[in-house]
Amino acid sequence: MPQHEEVIITQPQKLIENFDSLHPTDIANSLRKIEKDSIDDFFFVLKKVPDELLGEVLLELPDNLRELAYEELSIKKLTDAVEELESDDQTDLILELEEIDEEKAKEIYDGLEEEDQKDIDWLKKYEEDEAGAYMQTELFSASLDETIGDSVKRLKEAKESDELENIHQVFVIDENRILIASILLEDLIIFDFNKTYDEILRTDENKFKPFKVDDHEDIDNVAKQFEQYDLSVVAVTSYQGILMGRITSDDILDVIEENATEQMYQLAGVNDDFEHEDKLSTTAKKRALWLFLNLGTAILASLVIGIFDETIQAYVALAILMPIVASMGGNAGTQTLAVMVRQLALGDIELENAKDAVKKEVVISLINGFLFAVIMGIIAWLWFDTKLLGLVIAMSMVINLFSAGFFGAAIPLVLKRFDIDPAIGSTVLLTTVTDIVGFFSFLMLAKVILL
Amino acid sequence: MPQHEEVIITQPQKLIENFDSLHPTDIANSLRKIEKDSIDDFFFVLKKVPDELLGEVLLELPDNLRELAYEELSIKKLTDAVEELESDDQTDLILELEEIDEEKAKEIYDGLEEEDQKDIDWLKKYEEDEAGAYMQTELFSASLDETIGDSVKRLKEAKESDELENIHQVFVIDENRILIASILLEDLIIFDFNKTYDEILRTDENKFKPFKVDDHEDIDNVAKQFEQYDLSVVAVTSYQGILMGRITSDDILDVIEENATEQMYQLAGVNDDFEHEDKLSTTAKKRALWLFLNLGTAILASLVIGIFDETIQAYVALAILMPIVASMGGNAGTQTLAVMVRQLALGDIELENAKDAVKKEVVISLINGFLFAVIMGIIAWLWFDTKLLGLVIAMSMVINLFSAGFFGAAIPLVLKRFDIDPAIGSTVLLTTVTDIVGFFSFLMLAKVILL
Repeated sequence: MPQHEEVIITQPQKLIENFDSLHPTDIANSLRKIEKDSIDDFFFVLKKVPDELLGEVLLELPDNLRELAYEELSIKKLTDAVEELESDDQTDLILELEEIDEEKAKEIYDGLEEEDQKDIDWLKKYEEDEAGAYMQTELFSASLDETIGDSVKRLKEAKESDELENIHQVFVIDENRILIASILLEDLIIFDFNKTYDEILRTDENKFKPFKVDDHEDIDNVAKQFEQYDLSVVAVTSYQGILMGRITSDDILDVIEENATEQMYQLAGVNDDFEHEDKLSTTAKKRALWLFLNLGTAILASLVIGIFDETIQAYVALAILMPIVASMGGNAGTQTLAVMVRQLALGDIELENAKDAVKKEVVISLINGFLFAVIMGIIAWLWFDTKLLGLVIAMSMVINLFSAGFFGAAIPLVLKRFDIDPAIGSTVLLTTVTDIVGFFSFLMLAKVILL
Repeated sequence: MPQHEEVIITQPQKLIENFDSLHPTDIANSLRKIEKDSIDDFFFVLKKVPDELLGEVLLELPDNLRELAYEELSIKKLTDAVEELESDDQTDLILELEEIDEEKAKEIYDGLEEEDQKDIDWLKKYEEDEAGAYMQTELFSASLDETIGDSVKRLKEAKESDELENIHQVFVIDENRILIASILLEDLIIFDFNKTYDEILRTDENKFKPFKVDDHEDIDNVAKQFEQYDLSVVAVTSYQGILMGRITSDDILDVIEENATEQMYQLAGVNDDFEHEDKLSTTAKKRALWLFLNLGTAILASLVIGIFDETIQAYVALAILMPIVASMGGNAGTQTLAVMVRQLALGDIELENAKDAVKKEVVISLINGFLFAVIMGIIAWLWFDTKLLGLVIAMSMVINLFSAGFFGAAIPLVLKRFDIDPAIGSTVLLTTVTDIVGFFSFLMLAKVILL
C-alpha cells in the first residue's frame, strides 16, 4: 500500500472533525461509504463540509451522488463552493447543474463574481474535445518590464487570497497579452529578483520558448504533446498567440485514461457515455444497436451456409467443423485488429508507413495459417477418418487466416484514411469478413473436393 | 496542429546546424526519417549529436534504431551520453545495453562517476513493476536547519552544473534522510529566504505533508494515486521513510498508456512484449499460443455439435442458424467483459460491490436476450416457414444472452478474486461458455421440440 494511505472515515462525526487534515478525494470517498449506510448521514456530513473544500469534494463524488448533492445543498452553499474552484471546474459544475436544474444553475451563476462569470461564459463556448475546454484561466503571468521581485510579490498575494495554486511557471506576456516565454519556478527562484523579465529573456532565447497549444486544438493532440515532450504544463493561446490559460498534467492523465477506455469499449461495441445511466434499459438499448449490427453479420454468414445446404446434408461433419474455421479466423483477425487500432492511436503506425504494417500482419497470419492448417488437418482427418476432409479444412484455414490478417490490418487503415475512428465499427466489418470467408471457403472446397 | 509544431528536419546538414534549438524528441523523430532514406546519413548525424542531448535522443528513438546506435557509437561517446542522463534513464540504458553487448555495457558503466554507478547498482535491484524502478534519484532536498536562502543557492549551483532539472519542490529531510515535508516551489518562492525550514514547517503542519510511496510499491498503484490526488510528483521512500527518489507525472503518463495497451492486447490475445520483435516468426509464435487455446475451445464446441449430428441431418436449417446464436452470445459477452475488465482496472468496480455489477449485467443481457429472441424468432420462422424453429432459436437466444451476461461479468471477478489479471484469459473462457451454451441450447431444444 502507498504510504499516503487513503483515509476513509465512515463515522459521520469523526469525519467532520477531521475535515481540515483530509484531502478532498478522501472526504469524497468517505462520503461514498457513508451514503451506502445512510443517505441522511451523507447529507448531514455534506452540509458541514467547509466552502473551500466543498467544490473539490463534489467533483470527486460519483455522478449520482453529485446530483443528489446538487438537489440537497442550498443555492448559497453551492455558490460559495463554486466560487472557490478554478475556472475549468467552475464551468464543469455549472454545465452539469444546467442539465439538472436550469433555474438553480442560473441563480448560482448570478451569485458569482463578475470575473468568474466572464471566465465561465468564455470556457462554455469550447467544444468538449477542444483544448480550451480543459484549460484553467488561473495562472501566474508577468509582463516583460516587471521585475521578478515584483511579480513574486503578486504571486504571494494571489496565493494568500487563495486565487492561485498549482503554479509551475511564470508566463511572460507582452502588452497585448501575447505569450512570449515560460519560465519554470526552478529557474525563476535562482535569478536576481531585481532584474526584469526582459533582461532575463535576453540571456537565453531558446531556453524559455513556451510550449503552447491553440485553444481549438483537439485535446487528444495535446495529450500526445505531453507524452512526446514529457510536459507537466502547457500554455493555451488563442488567435495571434494571446495567452488564454493552461492545461496541467493531471487533466491529461484523465484524458489518456478516458481515451483508452473509449477505445477498448468501441472495439467491444460499448458506448461509454451510456454505461453509467441509472436506467439499465438505456444502457441495454445502446448495446442492442451493436448487437443488431452483429445480427446482420451473422445472418449474412448464415445465408452463405444456406447456399451449401445440400453439401451439409451429405456430409454432416461439415456442420460440425465449420465453426472452427470461422472462429479461428475471427480470433486471428481480432489480434491483428487490436494491434493496428492501438498503434494507430499511439502514432506508432501512420498512414505513410502502413504498407509495412499490413505486410507484417499478412506474414504473421500466413505463418499461423499454415501451422493451424497442419494441426487441424490432421485432427479432422483422424476424427472423421477422411483424408480429404483434412485437406479441405487445412486449405480453408490458410485462406481464412490470411484474409483475417489482411483485413484485420486493412480495415482500420481504410477507416482512418476516411477520417473515421478505426476503433468504431472495425470489429463488425472484420467479423463479417472472417465469417463469410471462413464458411464459404470451407464449404465451397468441401463441395468441390468431397462431392 | 499544436503551435509548438513538431520540427522534422530531413536534411542531414541542416539538422546538425539546428541541434541547439531542437527538442531531443524532434531530433529523434528527424533521425527516424533520415534513417529511412539512408542508414549512412543516420549514423553521420547521430555521431554529431552533442553529448548533453545524445542520451535523450537515444531514449526517444524506436528500439531497433537505438540498438543500431549502440553498436555504431563508440564507448567514449556512449559513456558521455549516459553521464548526462538522470539516474532512472541511465539505468534503463545500461540494462538495455547489457542485453545487447554485455562487454560494452560493462565498459560504459566503468567509465561513469562513482556516484552514478552507485545509483545504477541500486536502481537495478528493483523489479520492473516497482515504484523504485521508475524513480529518479536526482532531487532537491534540504535539511530542517538549513535556511531557504542557502538551499536555493545550492539549487542554483546544481542547476548550473546541469545536475538537476524538472524541480517542482524541495523535499525536507531530517538528519537520517527521513522525509519530513515537501514544499512546492510556488510556496518556497514567497517565503522569507532567511528562515530555516524548521521555522517554516512549524507554521502549518498539514500543508506540507508529503505524498510518498514505498519504493517496492506496485507502479500501477502509484499511477492510481496520481490520478486520485491530481499529483505531479511523488516522493519515493524506503524502509522507515528514508527519501530515495521521486517519480514525475511524465513517467506516469507512460505507465497509464502502457497499461491500457496491455489490457487491450490481453483481451485480444496479444502479448505486447513480443509485438516489436524483428523476427516475425517470434511474434507469430506468441500469437499462435492464444490461437491454440481458441482452437481447443472451438473443438469443444464442435464436439457439442457432434452430439446432435442426427438432428442436424434431419433439419439442415439448424446448421444454417446455429452460428447466429453462438455469435450473438459471443458479442453480448464481449460487451460485458470489456466493461467489467476496464472498470475493475479503473477501480470503479471492486470485489465488494461486485454483486451490483453482476446484477446490472444480467438485467441488461436479459433485456437484450428477449429483444433479439423476438427479432430472430420471427426471422427464423419466416425464413424456414417453421413456427417451432422460431420458438427454438428464440428460447436459445434468451438462454445464451443470459449466460453471456452472467459469465461475462462473473469470469473477470473470479479471476480477480484469485489474483489473476482479469484481462488475461477471460476472453477464451467466455467464448467457451457462449459457444457451448449457444450450440447446446439451440440443438438440444431443437431435438426436443422439433423432432
